[in-house]
Amino acid sequence: MAAAAAARAALPRPHLALPSSARRIPSVSLAASPVPGPRAAAPVAAAAAAPPQPQVTTRLGDVIEAQQFDRAALNEIFEVAREMEAVERGSHGAPSRVLEGYLMATLFYEPSTRTRLSFEAAMRRLGGEVLTTENAREFSSAAKGETLEDTIRTVEGYSDIIVLRHFESGAARRAADTAIIPVINAGDGPGQHPTQALLDVYTIKREIGALDGIKLGLVGDLANGRTVRSLAYLIAKYQNIKIYFVSPDVVKMKDDIKDHLNSQGVEWEESSDLLEVASQCDVIYQTRIQKERFGERIDLYEAARGKYIVDKKVLDVLPKHAVIMHPLPRLDEITVDVDSDPRAAYFRQAKNGLYIRMALLKLLLVGH
Amino acid sequence: MAAAAAARAALPRPHLALPSSARRIPSVSLAASPVPGPRAAAPVAAAAAAPPQPQVTTRLGDVIEAQQFDRAALNEIFEVAREMEAVERGSHGAPSRVLEGYLMATLFYEPSTRTRLSFEAAMRRLGGEVLTTENAREFSSAAKGETLEDTIRTVEGYSDIIVLRHFESGAARRAADTAIIPVINAGDGPGQHPTQALLDVYTIKREIGALDGIKLGLVGDLANGRTVRSLAYLIAKYQNIKIYFVSPDVVKMKDDIKDHLNSQGVEWEESSDLLEVASQCDVIYQTRIQKERFGERIDLYEAARGKYIVDKKVLDVLPKHAVIMHPLPRLDEITVDVDSDPRAAYFRQAKNGLYIRMALLKLLLVGH
Amino acid sequence: MAAAAAARAALPRPHLALPSSARRIPSVSLAASPVPGPRAAAPVAAAAAAPPQPQVTTRLGDVIEAQQFDRAALNEIFEVAREMEAVERGSHGAPSRVLEGYLMATLFYEPSTRTRLSFEAAMRRLGGEVLTTENAREFSSAAKGETLEDTIRTVEGYSDIIVLRHFESGAARRAADTAIIPVINAGDGPGQHPTQALLDVYTIKREIGALDGIKLGLVGDLANGRTVRSLAYLIAKYQNIKIYFVSPDVVKMKDDIKDHLNSQGVEWEESSDLLEVASQCDVIYQTRIQKERFGERIDLYEAARGKYIVDKKVLDVLPKHAVIMHPLPRLDEITVDVDSDPRAAYFRQAKNGLYIRMALLKLLLVGH
Repeated sequence: MAAAAAARAALPRPHLALPSSARRIPSVSLAASPVPGPRAAAPVAAAAAAPPQPQVTTRLGDVIEAQQFDRAALNEIFEVAREMEAVERGSHGAPSRVLEGYLMATLFYEPSTRTRLSFEAAMRRLGGEVLTTENAREFSSAAKGETLEDTIRTVEGYSDIIVLRHFESGAARRAADTAIIPVINAGDGPGQHPTQALLDVYTIKREIGALDGIKLGLVGDLANGRTVRSLAYLIAKYQNIKIYFVSPDVVKMKDDIKDHLNSQGVEWEESSDLLEVASQCDVIYQTRIQKERFGERIDLYEAARGKYIVDKKVLDVLPKHAVIMHPLPRLDEITVDVDSDPRAAYFRQAKNGLYIRMALLKLLLVGH
Repeated sequence: MAAAAAARAALPRPHLALPSSARRIPSVSLAASPVPGPRAAAPVAAAAAAPPQPQVTTRLGDVIEAQQFDRAALNEIFEVAREMEAVERGSHGAPSRVLEGYLMATLFYEPSTRTRLSFEAAMRRLGGEVLTTENAREFSSAAKGETLEDTIRTVEGYSDIIVLRHFESGAARRAADTAIIPVINAGDGPGQHPTQALLDVYTIKREIGALDGIKLGLVGDLANGRTVRSLAYLIAKYQNIKIYFVSPDVVKMKDDIKDHLNSQGVEWEESSDLLEVASQCDVIYQTRIQKERFGERIDLYEAARGKYIVDKKVLDVLPKHAVIMHPLPRLDEITVDVDSDPRAAYFRQAKNGLYIRMALLKLLLVGH
Repeated sequence: MAAAAAARAALPRPHLALPSSARRIPSVSLAASPVPGPRAAAPVAAAAAAPPQPQVTTRLGDVIEAQQFDRAALNEIFEVAREMEAVERGSHGAPSRVLEGYLMATLFYEPSTRTRLSFEAAMRRLGGEVLTTENAREFSSAAKGETLEDTIRTVEGYSDIIVLRHFESGAARRAADTAIIPVINAGDGPGQHPTQALLDVYTIKREIGALDGIKLGLVGDLANGRTVRSLAYLIAKYQNIKIYFVSPDVVKMKDDIKDHLNSQGVEWEESSDLLEVASQCDVIYQTRIQKERFGERIDLYEAARGKYIVDKKVLDVLPKHAVIMHPLPRLDEITVDVDSDPRAAYFRQAKNGLYIRMALLKLLLVGH
């Protein structure tokens, strides 16, 4: 398979961070691609046109993990996301046709309605169309033992971009290595959920007005939370960041992230005083304690769960310009009486997921 | 939460029954709404712009229960529904773009394919787009304990109108009290199913040509049938109505409806003679005996089920101008040899669901 | 029901094989059809307009089984499918509006994501819209005991064409006999899957350039494979065909197909030497051994499964112009190192499913 994969990977698919003159992504139409296609007339010639190529290990033009973006790429995505607010606002009077004629396949091997709906809304707001598979795990083919790679090669024949949600870490990378068309990782198990990380950073920029110099309190389940780990990673690309970790002992931030922050010169400290941290932060990022990680130790879960609650007392000390974020869903780790405070940014954060996904779809399918 | 909810509820959302000059519903774009939004520049000013307001308890611009509509509102909906027949007829040559750029989210916490498909077809026939969630109960967020209110506040960020099917009575009201965008109740458990009630009344008007003076036989499961209860309620708004209740003893119409009819001066009587009733009615509305309500008393179910069947004998005595209706699905309470009689109106009734839903979507999103 | 069914069936719905001047299919809009419709003004007159007609047993304008197509019909479908490649290629710059305003309902009583997605992509690539039901078996109505016929009569009110996947053989025929609008069989249990058969034959024509004179090796599970049976049937319509059957003894091709080939003068033989067969064929059609047919005899399954594998050794003897096909999903009956060979046609074959389905939708809804 190596030869064909290399031939497929050799299609020019510039990285988002390249200068924008080079960034226009060529047509992803299968029919127009120099890929082995129907060969009724000259099968041998077609074979000759797709000789073995050096293996390309890094696929470009996909969104697979938060780490793939440098500051320039992030800035460009955020700039386009900002433009998307106006595009959405114009939907009723002058709907966008930027992605007219494009088809997105949402291939979800586990349900994630929030993520799926925001991707599908994003595609629709840009004039594109959607193919939905909410239960791809029961995809008759997968149930019969088909590999992810084979499924991808079939589905890419029906669509222009694949949004993949999978239960296995690394699945998105495998899909991207297989597909000719762009793949967006919408979460692969305990692995990555890069569009969530992007919308989190975008929300800080949008709410606070800057990313350099931000003081960020990460609260709750820091051991298991994919979102806080990715956020810590991404925010480390900016200058003069200070991070506070506030979590029950059983779910403390792990050393790999702390080591990474150290290597990037990011200041961080652990604290058990949420009020003290809140009084000094620009952003309090609260997370849900993930019950499913505690197994039978419900007692530990209950103890961890109630320890750090964002409530009116936190609001009382939180600076006026600061905001409270949460990746949602929330249980009671933010009390509902906080919702009406203008500093409660979590529903605006969810909405930013729409703008970020619109931006990514536009950038991957037609460029800036 | 009260302050924000009030600020959100304070958006002008005129009742359908207002004079049509006042009825145009303003843009529901979140971005254009005076709701706490991104506040990068001036968070405090934004907060000041959304001061606490007196609590608004009745939400307007939603479709929550059959009782909310007066005769004027019903007439307007029916008038628009009639226009929708021509819109649908023109779909192939000149498809409607009335709702182009609008997105409807069908948030179904229990499956109801018939209802969902008719809403989605309605949206499409008007040029709108759809986000579908057929298994919202397994919405990962809901499964993790997210409240309906939080889900609504997320989904409203991705769409322009929410069609909610829920298993709990009162869920639609809660959703409407939360959402800025319009909510349509597509059935909330044992509670309401107002679009079914509207299409039933519309079908009588469309088939018979009038609503005042109608003689209506309600047959079958009158105790548990949400549709016959709502229909009795709505038809009571018209003049010179006569209702016959024909049902097995175990599923008789309950006193609350009888009391309501009395208070409205609607004449009604109970009868055990379906043929006698059929010979005098304009409409025979048959319903399915709901097995699931009988628990282990299958014997009672079987006895009730076979008691009043609409068959050729009923057709023999039914006036030429009269019609037979049924909310569907039917089992054998109407025999299939009735289907070919032009007085069998139940599939046309199902079709009218499309026109009623088109009318509601148009009225709620862009006005008449 | 006979009278109404006959009246409905009497709508002109020419067979695809008729000369193309007669082939334009009239509007399928329910509203425009001479079917008993709303009769507010004159119910009796409407009834008189739909008198009993002679029973029409063969429904036209539906795609129910592979056998319904003669060579002329196949040629026309293939010609339109070829045009669809250009239509798809133009999607981004100049998307097709051929089916703008048309609604397809995918009514799937069992999941088949591959088939569903290809139909939905086909509809979208032609500018049409889709209503999706992935779990029609749990269609609340079906679960409550509604007949397929009643479901069809409801769904046809919301759409312009129905694509039905069902678990019962004969279901597609029943649906087509009920519906006014066209029905496409997307697989009915052990019965038919005509669009798969069409795309298989189209792939041979597209890859090899001809159908007459083809040498075809059918490999694997020939007893249970619906696809190889249909393919043998269809290919028998062409001249000078030679078929080799290569299968483990427990899953040999059945006599009905052999008898049919004999009656059509098609040469066939059985062989146990895959390499010998491969060296002489234009097409090797490999299939998956269907484990589910072996019940508890896992030993027989394992023996059958490993017996005939398409691998590099097969490629070594396969003529340069020949191709390998597979209906997918595949397990290990074709090794993945075959994928990169240009003669591996199975993913192109899957893609042809898109073109064939686009062609059928266009032919059934608006004609050539």
